[in-house]
Amino acid sequence: LQVFSCNSNPVLAKEIAEHIGIPLGDAVVGKFSDGEIHVRLNESVRGSDVYVIQSTSHPVNQHLMELLVMVDALRRASARTINVVIPYYGYARQDRKTRARDPITSKLVANLIETAGADRIIAMDLHATQIQGFFDIPVDHLLGVPILSEYFKERALEDVVVVSPDHGGVIRARKLAERLQSPIAIIDKRRPEPNVAEVMNIVGDVKGRRAIIIDDIIDTAGTITLAANALLEYGAKEVYACCTHPVFSGPAIQRIKEANIKEMVVTNTIPLPEEKQLDKIRVLSVAPLIGEAI
Amino acid sequence: LQVFSCNSNPVLAKEIAEHIGIPLGDAVVGKFSDGEIHVRLNESVRGSDVYVIQSTSHPVNQHLMELLVMVDALRRASARTINVVIPYYGYARQDRKTRARDPITSKLVANLIETAGADRIIAMDLHATQIQGFFDIPVDHLLGVPILSEYFKERALEDVVVVSPDHGGVIRARKLAERLQSPIAIIDKRRPEPNVAEVMNIVGDVKGRRAIIIDDIIDTAGTITLAANALLEYGAKEVYACCTHPVFSGPAIQRIKEANIKEMVVTNTIPLPEEKQLDKIRVLSVAPLIGEAI
Ligand SMILES: Nc1ncnc2c1ncn2[C@@H]1O[C@H](COP(=O)(O)O)[C@@H](O)[C@H]1O
Ligand SMILES: Nc1ncnc2c1ncn2[C@@H]1O[C@H](COP(=O)(O)O)[C@@H](O)[C@H]1O
Repeated sequence: LQVFSCNSNPVLAKEIAEHIGIPLGDAVVGKFSDGEIHVRLNESVRGSDVYVIQSTSHPVNQHLMELLVMVDALRRASARTINVVIPYYGYARQDRKTRARDPITSKLVANLIETAGADRIIAMDLHATQIQGFFDIPVDHLLGVPILSEYFKERALEDVVVVSPDHGGVIRARKLAERLQSPIAIIDKRRPEPNVAEVMNIVGDVKGRRAIIIDDIIDTAGTITLAANALLEYGAKEVYACCTHPVFSGPAIQRIKEANIKEMVVTNTIPLPEEKQLDKIRVLSVAPLIGEAI
Repeated sequence: LQVFSCNSNPVLAKEIAEHIGIPLGDAVVGKFSDGEIHVRLNESVRGSDVYVIQSTSHPVNQHLMELLVMVDALRRASARTINVVIPYYGYARQDRKTRARDPITSKLVANLIETAGADRIIAMDLHATQIQGFFDIPVDHLLGVPILSEYFKERALEDVVVVSPDHGGVIRARKLAERLQSPIAIIDKRRPEPNVAEVMNIVGDVKGRRAIIIDDIIDTAGTITLAANALLEYGAKEVYACCTHPVFSGPAIQRIKEANIKEMVVTNTIPLPEEKQLDKIRVLSVAPLIGEAI
């Protein structure tokens, strides 16, 4: 068993290797002067079961290519099996044609990873569970809910209501609510007319309660900020937010700073650079979970 | 017949479309807030023979991914054939294992492009002609030599010797020499001992002659600068340099500025941003050549 890391999340990779009790494999994933990626494996992998840890987070195309080149190198170096651990799977939201002539990049990426030579995928909270079916190789699909719920259980908040920010996230919210033995509510976005701002209605009772919004990905944090305001308007006492994948692009950090959100709980599937670390953001590690799965 | 462009070389794409006499296809290749690429085709391609123009030049991973997503979108939109025009094929130099456990990224990229759904490739001056064999689909391989030789013929230089900067480039140099009816010379680099600087010997007579160095790719311009000095030491009167693909990364422009090179002739397979345009650099267009091939 060997564990290698590319460049998206070396800290998590190290933690995972430590959890398993082996050192990280010795490899360099670097760049030539013109920006082309080169991979150098400094130890033999012949006949070995190899795990590669790489989130396809920002910069997504570079991180994806690092992964593909790494898998190519491992395959040509006669690794027995190549197990690709993708804590955050980029391009997951392009998982269907929402308009005519859309690409389905999420499926394309699955094909690319298989083409490079992966034998098995370990992923976490895929934006759509259908993405498992985009692969013809086995996919182990891990969930962030147990980690997030452990945290909130320890916080021992009272009068909790778990909130799904949209109808697509209800199953996830239901899982968290079960673990916290709390009711759920759903935010029902509607655009009354085209080009008119969305109206946020809330299905379920949040009055006097502590709302915990849960999502898989928080990207620009627009939805979550509006949801928090709506919840407070409907009488919620406090708002917490949590997600597995803190993409936090564009205006996200500024919005979270200013939002009426008491605490934002995320995991380390995507590392937060220093300038994105706020006091109100709490990061939980997925290393034990992934370590167990390996 | 429809011609689409991604973002690496829109000027060349436009020129190619003009040469064929049709407008460029209406498509947007953009980015979401988190850097993921999205492609929107604004016109139908159903049943059409579609050409996509994209060099996989710097930033290579992004440009490659743009191409793959575009091909995916075209395939799902029922294009009849998808013909991928890659004026500059990035990762071409990683075409073999030079050390144990190297990846062969050049073959990986060929597999990725086929996986996305390309039916045919049009490429120019592949670093190794073997790369044609990395594809299982037809590859049209165009050469820059006719364009470069036309230019030098018009310049009507006298006492020319065409110089290959290494043994790998002799066939290319021979082709240019035949067209210019001139002799050739070869630069023979040798490292007398490990960790001692390379010595440049010249095979062939350059004394009193105008040397034209020809290469496929000029990247950091280190080789070409040293070669120019060696040629002048061996008595060459003037040194010109030419190549198909001006990668020009890192110190390249500074070196070219300072080098004992009278003129550097390149093509537009890779566009030169303003800060890389020098008086001594002359850019020739490959649009007519590619237009003919389409
Ligand atoms: N990286 C991205 N950032 C923002 N929107 C995206 C991204 N990728 C895909 N989308 C769009 O998000 C929508 C799907 O999101 P969802 O409805 O949450 O599954 C589609 O309209 C996609 O075009
Ligand atoms: N983008 C690149 N920049 C510099 N060197 C490279 C690049 N890609 C591959 N190489 C190396 O260049 C060598 C092959 O170049 P060549 O001998 O000219 O075919 C190999 O040692 C490669 O590892």
